[in-house]
Amino acid sequence: MGASTFSEQHQITFYEADVTNTVTPAMLVNMIILASEHQTTALGVGSDVVAKQGLGWVVTQYKMDITRLPKADETITLTTRATCYNRYFAFREFWVHDSDGKECVHVESIWVTMDHETRKIVTIPANIIEPFESEKVKMIPRLARPKKLTDRDQLLSKKYRVRYFDIDGNGHVNNARYFDWLLDALPMSFLTRHDLTGINIRFENEVQYHHMVTSEATLLTDINEPIVTKHHIVTEDGGIATEAEFHWRPITNQQ
Amino acid sequence: MGASTFSEQHQITFYEADVTNTVTPAMLVNMIILASEHQTTALGVGSDVVAKQGLGWVVTQYKMDITRLPKADETITLTTRATCYNRYFAFREFWVHDSDGKECVHVESIWVTMDHETRKIVTIPANIIEPFESEKVKMIPRLARPKKLTDRDQLLSKKYRVRYFDIDGNGHVNNARYFDWLLDALPMSFLTRHDLTGINIRFENEVQYHHMVTSEATLLTDINEPIVTKHHIVTEDGGIATEAEFHWRPITNQQ
Repeated sequence: MGASTFSEQHQITFYEADVTNTVTPAMLVNMIILASEHQTTALGVGSDVVAKQGLGWVVTQYKMDITRLPKADETITLTTRATCYNRYFAFREFWVHDSDGKECVHVESIWVTMDHETRKIVTIPANIIEPFESEKVKMIPRLARPKKLTDRDQLLSKKYRVRYFDIDGNGHVNNARYFDWLLDALPMSFLTRHDLTGINIRFENEVQYHHMVTSEATLLTDINEPIVTKHHIVTEDGGIATEAEFHWRPITNQQ
Repeated sequence: MGASTFSEQHQITFYEADVTNTVTPAMLVNMIILASEHQTTALGVGSDVVAKQGLGWVVTQYKMDITRLPKADETITLTTRATCYNRYFAFREFWVHDSDGKECVHVESIWVTMDHETRKIVTIPANIIEPFESEKVKMIPRLARPKKLTDRDQLLSKKYRVRYFDIDGNGHVNNARYFDWLLDALPMSFLTRHDLTGINIRFENEVQYHHMVTSEATLLTDINEPIVTKHHIVTEDGGIATEAEFHWRPITNQQ
């Protein structure tokens, strides 16, 4: 018997899409998080219940395999399942399907429960995980770390100040904001000429309201390899907030 | 016989809300624009039809009266009507109602048709306005201009670089982005302690991808007057991109 799945539909709006009318990775993450919130609420263990125990769910990593990113006006189906978990980590999957039932995106994600006061990771309480009928395992699936930037990399770099509207209802910077900072470091000429085929992002340290962050990126240029960009976000004190790796496919003009 | 109205429902998501779980003005503008796009498409004069004539609809001003801004998870009804027009200007109204049918927001807006190549305002073509059954008038309602910042004002100021994801499917900076720049100039301590009661915003000049803009604001401090902040966005060459005025009410703690 597997973990219970939850699905909902969503019509992509123009303001969830970019200049090419394609859904932005940031908004896609918002949509899948919304679906998981609807599942947790439906199972009686929504964020209010978790907060009453002094805890909150936090994502530490997303790995996405992208067949194609849907376009504005498309109605997509978002499906999610809390596949398995151990003492400290929960492994949740998401799928995005188009209206023909074709898979567009598959997302694997790692979650932890964090104590609101100490900001430390704690054992996942049984009462908030059991309703998902997840498999209890010794080891959850291991996701590769994003490739690290090195001193030899030629960097693209942009600075961002954390804005009021970057902070969500939990009082923290919404995870989706990191995608905008990470990708905006790349030039528009690159972004409009390539389709995303994969994303691997790991959240290391929180950033704070009004702080400056630096988004640095490099394009791996080995001609025999797929197109990959490596990224990180650095905080004012030089710490790493986020590491990420994006995989790309050149857009070929079709008539 | 009045102009035809169009209504649709929308459930506000967490990612359309701010740290206080209140819908952001930027997202509210996106939602009303989406409703007007759905109306124009339903009447057979959607943006694709307008674009075929080499034109696009552009908003030059919004004036909003706000009873209350709805919260995340609320289902609101968005209603719009192209109330009246003359040779060059169309006057469109929007209403936001909550699930009890109470009016939350009333928006008045001024629209023009712009030639895509020359970027100049042109006479509104009859074929794209007639389906709305708008009243043809000599003068459309006049909206007051936002109060201007003066040399005597003590300024709050923040700089922003126009990002890739600020550009929408029309290839221009999405109007809603200006609301984030305008309001983010105010400190979080002010924003979380005041409710918006009114907005007046006028779009003067476009800003371009990768350019820097400066958002400047001041708080009018006449103790006998309502709380008003005056704002503008200045481009790199010193031109005014946007002028705005926001009206506020202190949040009183309720048990």
